[in-house]
Amino acid sequence: MADPRFFTNRGPFTVGDIAEATGAELRSEAGPGVELSDVSTLQDAADGHLTFLENRRYVKDFRSSGASACFVDPTFADQAPTGMALLVTPRPRRNFAKIARWYYPVDRPEAGVHATADVAPGAVIGENVSIGPGVVVAAFAEIGAGTAIEANAVIGTGVSIGSECTIGANASISHAMIGDRVFVYPGVRIGQPGFGFDMDDAGPFLVPQLGRVIVEDDVEIGANTTIDRGSGPDTVIGRGSMIDNLVQIGHNVSLGRGCIIVAQVGISGSTRLGDRVVLAGQVGVAGHLEIGDGVQVAAMSGVNRSVAAGTVVGGAPAVPIRDFRRQVAAIKRLGRGGDGKKQDETA
Amino acid sequence: MADPRFFTNRGPFTVGDIAEATGAELRSEAGPGVELSDVSTLQDAADGHLTFLENRRYVKDFRSSGASACFVDPTFADQAPTGMALLVTPRPRRNFAKIARWYYPVDRPEAGVHATADVAPGAVIGENVSIGPGVVVAAFAEIGAGTAIEANAVIGTGVSIGSECTIGANASISHAMIGDRVFVYPGVRIGQPGFGFDMDDAGPFLVPQLGRVIVEDDVEIGANTTIDRGSGPDTVIGRGSMIDNLVQIGHNVSLGRGCIIVAQVGISGSTRLGDRVVLAGQVGVAGHLEIGDGVQVAAMSGVNRSVAAGTVVGGAPAVPIRDFRRQVAAIKRLGRGGDGKKQDETA
Amino acid sequence: MADPRFFTNRGPFTVGDIAEATGAELRSEAGPGVELSDVSTLQDAADGHLTFLENRRYVKDFRSSGASACFVDPTFADQAPTGMALLVTPRPRRNFAKIARWYYPVDRPEAGVHATADVAPGAVIGENVSIGPGVVVAAFAEIGAGTAIEANAVIGTGVSIGSECTIGANASISHAMIGDRVFVYPGVRIGQPGFGFDMDDAGPFLVPQLGRVIVEDDVEIGANTTIDRGSGPDTVIGRGSMIDNLVQIGHNVSLGRGCIIVAQVGISGSTRLGDRVVLAGQVGVAGHLEIGDGVQVAAMSGVNRSVAAGTVVGGAPAVPIRDFRRQVAAIKRLGRGGDGKKQDETA
Repeated sequence: MADPRFFTNRGPFTVGDIAEATGAELRSEAGPGVELSDVSTLQDAADGHLTFLENRRYVKDFRSSGASACFVDPTFADQAPTGMALLVTPRPRRNFAKIARWYYPVDRPEAGVHATADVAPGAVIGENVSIGPGVVVAAFAEIGAGTAIEANAVIGTGVSIGSECTIGANASISHAMIGDRVFVYPGVRIGQPGFGFDMDDAGPFLVPQLGRVIVEDDVEIGANTTIDRGSGPDTVIGRGSMIDNLVQIGHNVSLGRGCIIVAQVGISGSTRLGDRVVLAGQVGVAGHLEIGDGVQVAAMSGVNRSVAAGTVVGGAPAVPIRDFRRQVAAIKRLGRGGDGKKQDETA
Repeated sequence: MADPRFFTNRGPFTVGDIAEATGAELRSEAGPGVELSDVSTLQDAADGHLTFLENRRYVKDFRSSGASACFVDPTFADQAPTGMALLVTPRPRRNFAKIARWYYPVDRPEAGVHATADVAPGAVIGENVSIGPGVVVAAFAEIGAGTAIEANAVIGTGVSIGSECTIGANASISHAMIGDRVFVYPGVRIGQPGFGFDMDDAGPFLVPQLGRVIVEDDVEIGANTTIDRGSGPDTVIGRGSMIDNLVQIGHNVSLGRGCIIVAQVGISGSTRLGDRVVLAGQVGVAGHLEIGDGVQVAAMSGVNRSVAAGTVVGGAPAVPIRDFRRQVAAIKRLGRGGDGKKQDETA
Repeated sequence: MADPRFFTNRGPFTVGDIAEATGAELRSEAGPGVELSDVSTLQDAADGHLTFLENRRYVKDFRSSGASACFVDPTFADQAPTGMALLVTPRPRRNFAKIARWYYPVDRPEAGVHATADVAPGAVIGENVSIGPGVVVAAFAEIGAGTAIEANAVIGTGVSIGSECTIGANASISHAMIGDRVFVYPGVRIGQPGFGFDMDDAGPFLVPQLGRVIVEDDVEIGANTTIDRGSGPDTVIGRGSMIDNLVQIGHNVSLGRGCIIVAQVGISGSTRLGDRVVLAGQVGVAGHLEIGDGVQVAAMSGVNRSVAAGTVVGGAPAVPIRDFRRQVAAIKRLGRGGDGKKQDETA
């Protein structure tokens, strides 16, 4: 059960209503009227709770779960404990997520500008906006309806933020235009100058960084991630992209739609990602590359060449994933005393 | 000598009192009454200073050190310069650290709530708490006795923090329960939603993150590190764990007691570490793994399978350290033109 | 054209004045009096715009650029579109950067202390200093002439900052002395205690960290980067060094002059870099090493031994770059089914 200090439960709901809303097939001995008071994990669920099973790893927990109802893939349905109502669906996690939002809708802070916030004259604040304590909104910034700016965040001159966004505590945004329903986590840095200089014997000479950061709708940007503004062109984060914590995005980088960028990835300047690119954790991508639509890169890989659409790559430097798996196998054999050839394996 | 602008020296103390408090064997021609005015490094120490030698690398500096007294391992004692009082002990660094705290106790800011802080009604503030300028403490938060919250930090609704903690400048904490004597460095992000979503053609659908972050007693969390809250289960940092800067800890991760997590490590969601696990710098650990008690992982390694207790591993993907060392040796031979087999080395 | 919401254009300037100021050779059919209203990229430049070409990758864009004038390397000059005035120079980017500063000088905020800032008694504030909203300046801190401290930044007790610096939003600095013309980006953490403890069965014992951070003149420190203070010696960042985002610099590390440290690099405690060292993205350097003048380290490499001056290294563990390239080639062959020997390649 979610800790009531942090989350407010709007339940109960009936298993019948839940089945109807998600299209899941209801298998319930007690019928559709069963009330479910809360959502929970397989392991912690108790009487009255709704849960889900998607990952094969957790079938054991499913068999012994105390939940009253469970979203489950058809494959696993026959392993349910007796008495559990089943909501059979090919998308258990997605449907659980949807219903969890019924119980725990996103908390929006009360609208209004806190007394300790500093909103400059000339800033335009929409309806139902919440500006938290210590927030700074500079001149000519525009904040869209229903957006919340959390405590001590800083919004620079001329920045525009769309509607229904959340800007996390202590984040800072400058030189940027942010779309609707964007979630910027605490400590994010958007819009600072990129790493652009010309070095000679007299030392570095900073190249003016005259672009912006454009963040399209429905983007999520993880805690303490940094996104530099463009040097002339803009840095662009495409619609629906999900960026995890501590990611570095250099100047002029562009991400297409629906990209997934896992924690601690670094993308160097002027590299362009297509749509639905997936970069797993700690990947590094060199500058000035083209990464095609649907490319997937394995964790900790280093990409130093452009990658064609649809390709899955791994390794540092990254190669097609089949080659990378062979590299890994060969290196493992070397570590066990062989010579790397598969046929020579003796260890 | 520590810069008096930043540190206040409470010395002098006598070498005899220091020997007695640490159990070190005193070898001093001038007897136990010698006064030591300050602590210092081997290289910078001058007359009246106490220092220590532990790392073989610095024996040369020991021989020429101007210190009046030195904690030293018995192995190196006979190389001391003449006139230096020796405090012979198998734990020179530990005992030096202990005595350095006599000279320079941890500075606690004055108790009180700064005029520019915003403490919500309903927050519970213990005795001798210091709330710095610009700090935000939301409703129903609880701050334990003797804790200091530094400037512009943000403590969210319902968060509890134990006694004698320090929360660094510009840090933010939500959805969390923090133990006693926890040191959260500047810019740390605790409790934001984890990276949880379901992606389909219509874009990402965020999965509600309904867990918390539990930080047990005596934990240290380095600057700009991020710890996401659980998705349903909690994220847990076990007692006495030390976490360095810029570390990423995903949702539902649990660390046992006394873990050491070096800078820029990333631990993916739902992975569980046992007690006294050591992850060296820039290590990445995949999600849903079990890392046993006492496991040690070499720097920059990538762990993609569970690791049994007591194992030392290295490489990406990580293998037992002996195999990793052989891999490294074989790859070095390849780089010099050989074929990777040890017996074939000709370069 | 730079977005006027964020940047103020001080142009136009004539192509003749620009040629004279940079020493570039002017090749202009319309003579030196042509007025240039703005700077732009090759791709976006329109009539009246000045741009530059340096990277071979963009020659195609040069040929079709709508710019009225372009800094260009002699090699590419003959590929210019008709009617474009050329400013021929071996340093197109450097000269473009210089002139871009004519159009868009660094914006300095208005001098003064914002009403919501908290400047402690005893702090010394120079002339023409700008202290933004929510900024905290502790006792005995000194801020030099012309320096700007942006919103919600925190300057600790006794810290000194030179003249013409910018300290970014939400940054925090303690136990540090900062030179002139230093640019600290948003979210930077300078001066917190390093990762120093002695671990035994009773748990960790923190070693007092009694040093400082010294940042020399003309240094740039990227967003959310962390620089720990020394443990006794100081942590030192040498003059003119450029540090990118999300970099970790451990206690007692010293950088020489003009080092370039790319994003997400980690440098472990007590390692010393010479002058003009270049560490590419995501490099890790172990502790207690000496990295000589002019050393260059390839992206994602792991340096675990000292490196002699002038050496270029790559790999993890890092080896001379020639060996690293051979390693990469051999591993690629292994991934294609060969045995790593060049002569045996059959794939």
